[in-house]
Amino acid sequence: MAQNGQAGAERPQTGAPAVILVEPQLGENVGTAARAMANFSLGELRLVAPRDGWPNERAVKAASGADFIVEAARVFDTVEEAVADLNIVLATTARRRDMIKPVYSPETAAREMTARLADPDVRAGILFGRERTGLGNDEVALADGIIMAPVNTAFASLNLAQAVLLVGYEWFKLHTDGALGRETPVEAAGREGLYTAHTRAATKEELIGLFEHLERELDEANFLRPPEKRPAMVRNLRNMLSRANLTEQEVRTLRGVIASLVRNHERG
Amino acid sequence: MAQNGQAGAERPQTGAPAVILVEPQLGENVGTAARAMANFSLGELRLVAPRDGWPNERAVKAASGADFIVEAARVFDTVEEAVADLNIVLATTARRRDMIKPVYSPETAAREMTARLADPDVRAGILFGRERTGLGNDEVALADGIIMAPVNTAFASLNLAQAVLLVGYEWFKLHTDGALGRETPVEAAGREGLYTAHTRAATKEELIGLFEHLERELDEANFLRPPEKRPAMVRNLRNMLSRANLTEQEVRTLRGVIASLVRNHERG
Repeated sequence: MAQNGQAGAERPQTGAPAVILVEPQLGENVGTAARAMANFSLGELRLVAPRDGWPNERAVKAASGADFIVEAARVFDTVEEAVADLNIVLATTARRRDMIKPVYSPETAAREMTARLADPDVRAGILFGRERTGLGNDEVALADGIIMAPVNTAFASLNLAQAVLLVGYEWFKLHTDGALGRETPVEAAGREGLYTAHTRAATKEELIGLFEHLERELDEANFLRPPEKRPAMVRNLRNMLSRANLTEQEVRTLRGVIASLVRNHERG
Repeated sequence: MAQNGQAGAERPQTGAPAVILVEPQLGENVGTAARAMANFSLGELRLVAPRDGWPNERAVKAASGADFIVEAARVFDTVEEAVADLNIVLATTARRRDMIKPVYSPETAAREMTARLADPDVRAGILFGRERTGLGNDEVALADGIIMAPVNTAFASLNLAQAVLLVGYEWFKLHTDGALGRETPVEAAGREGLYTAHTRAATKEELIGLFEHLERELDEANFLRPPEKRPAMVRNLRNMLSRANLTEQEVRTLRGVIASLVRNHERG
């Protein structure tokens, strides 16, 4: 899935949080995480003591195209070093720790980081733990807050790339005003669609022309009977056709449909 | 990452949209998609002509724990059959098609489906295309709307499980977050209004019956020509009629309209 939007392109890299993978075990997972970052315009990858060493060919391969992120990744020995230059650090975790820290969802985390990043001197990062064991308490303790995604408690585990995907998605959504998201009412989306089809919405006059054409033929066919029911039947037909938000081109098509159904059989 | 929440548990399965994978190529991807469904409490998986056949051991393996979803999956030969019993179908797609349909984000799609599903007789499903080529235009034409995720246009491609993950995430978020849940889009309220008239939304099977009835008569009338233009003409007609969100009663009325236009002139 993708958006139509320039929104992605418009988006400056500056200020986006760094993704920090703590002791990732498999190169593949670093690569797919990088790929998820690229999906949502997150450019800065930091690695803390990747288990299988660095650089890692499998990471480049799994990034399938996002290798520019993998190759620009910076490697650190400890989490402390990896977050040293950052002002706000959030830690993704699968469970509440008994620590007094704010708990964010990916969505509220994106808002919090965005608010803090309004100050150009502020830099942010997000910690993601080891595939199996996640982040240790000492590592979480370094963070200003915790990010927990709403997930079915019976099936809470997300893989590394999926965790990065959800956090990146909410960040990107916020910075592309939700793209096709919350600010786009369904109707507007529909209308927008209308205009992309190189035509315009039908005028009421054109619509009524279609209605009367159909009704004329249906009277001809004795369909709109008995007379006392005619007004309601006409109303229902007009309601149906109105709901379709027909374009001017579509009105002409439908009139062609009616004419052809009738004409054919008049000939025959 | 996981939520603290009973919210997930509270959530009834009923009404959740079915996930429909159209000609998935690799069993692994069916399994990881099922896993993503489990993360967000989506239980119903439908498969259209899985390339490597079914059942598929690799799908079960890749589901790592979500095999109950894989094993309950229903397999269909065609998309038409897979959506026959559904009232609202949304199609995930990577690009805007030259079709006139509402375009949703995963977030607005969750709201739209939730509003429509307020009617207990309404059932929803989401189409996901083939790993490489996505959904064909004729498949998208069967849908009531399109879902496009806000993604960096330079890196738009999401794998199957990730696409399911984002759609499932927004669905789950809406249904485990009172604040979001309370907002009901105006447009959706209008739609609900449709079904208060002692009738229900048409099923796709009923709609397809109407489409085929009309197309039969138009072939009869030599309207759908030249042959090379027929597919596009059919698609446009189906899109127009789909947009009207017809009720079952309205579908019967329109079939009566077609029959009467034809019959009358056959008599004459």
